[in-house]
Amino acid sequence: MKRAMAILAVLYCGFLAVTVSGQTSGDGPRYVNGNNLVRPTNYREWIFLGSSIGMTYTPPRAQNAAPNFANVFVNPSSYRAFMQTGQWPDQTIFVLEPRRSSTESSLVKDGRFQSDMTGLEAEVKDARFADGWAWFNFGLAASLRESVAAIDQHAPQGTGQESCLSCHTAHGAVEKSFVQFYPTLLEVAKQKGTVKASY
Amino acid sequence: MKRAMAILAVLYCGFLAVTVSGQTSGDGPRYVNGNNLVRPTNYREWIFLGSSIGMTYTPPRAQNAAPNFANVFVNPSSYRAFMQTGQWPDQTIFVLEPRRSSTESSLVKDGRFQSDMTGLEAEVKDARFADGWAWFNFGLAASLRESVAAIDQHAPQGTGQESCLSCHTAHGAVEKSFVQFYPTLLEVAKQKGTVKASY
Repeated sequence: MKRAMAILAVLYCGFLAVTVSGQTSGDGPRYVNGNNLVRPTNYREWIFLGSSIGMTYTPPRAQNAAPNFANVFVNPSSYRAFMQTGQWPDQTIFVLEPRRSSTESSLVKDGRFQSDMTGLEAEVKDARFADGWAWFNFGLAASLRESVAAIDQHAPQGTGQESCLSCHTAHGAVEKSFVQFYPTLLEVAKQKGTVKASY
Repeated sequence: MKRAMAILAVLYCGFLAVTVSGQTSGDGPRYVNGNNLVRPTNYREWIFLGSSIGMTYTPPRAQNAAPNFANVFVNPSSYRAFMQTGQWPDQTIFVLEPRRSSTESSLVKDGRFQSDMTGLEAEVKDARFADGWAWFNFGLAASLRESVAAIDQHAPQGTGQESCLSCHTAHGAVEKSFVQFYPTLLEVAKQKGTVKASY
């Protein structure tokens, strides 16, 4: 009887977890209308991986006086898997949250802190996509979309624009993710031997 | 019977939560030898509140070419309470994690990202302290202490050093916490009317 109750209790805990998250497939990516990614609304309760400021793929014309921060979060179950293996499981979702930077002078005399959000982007590792990975842009903060299709990775040549896919494939320290910018994860990847030889 | 099982299940879930966290009082501060705060080791799985770069209480002599980031995390149950009420419950613990900033040029052409940790500090709201709040410094990253006593808030006058207590009391947007630097929380505090009139 005791054992039966314990089993029921565990099942009930599982049910609670699913109910609370509202996602039958755990905390990974959710889709509508085929492969349109639903914008996660609870990512601020996910695992924080790192923050950067003023990062840009293209050389700046002049010094940026008001650079943006960018925070990166990952879904908790994928984080736990990475800490064990140094690799990302299928159904991993990263959220990139850019924020303006601000200053104040009454309390602190230098430096910048995070203020308004400016947009929201996501990267997923999911076997449903031909390349195994996909990137999404939910638009500007004032008008974020509820769901979006993946960014086309096969745009016509000659646009001068390197695709997310080719850049993440060439430069990602682990698989197609920029683990080089997530200091606690980079240590794990080194220990587990999962840093790419090309990095 | 169904109801009895549901109650048992909930109790069992609670037991599991306590067992997993290894803390009988939930995810709040833990102490040894009286009021010495035990350094949290799982704070990277807590809730991220915000990040800053180059913040300093004293005017810098020259431009800081390699400013440090500082990440702030809070224990999850206190975060959930704040989202409901705009106030911090007793047994709240914040962790401040300073990290060096780095650059790289093969992938990104400007900006800085987070690299090595340089130290670890904490702030707690806990009625066991005379002021209701206390601050702790675990030292340098290479030799972090397992537990530390609170920083003395009643140092002799004339040292030119404002205490954590007086500064957080004077400048904290909500209670004695710098919610003005945590953008998602500041919105909540405004909605709940808990931003201090003096702020």
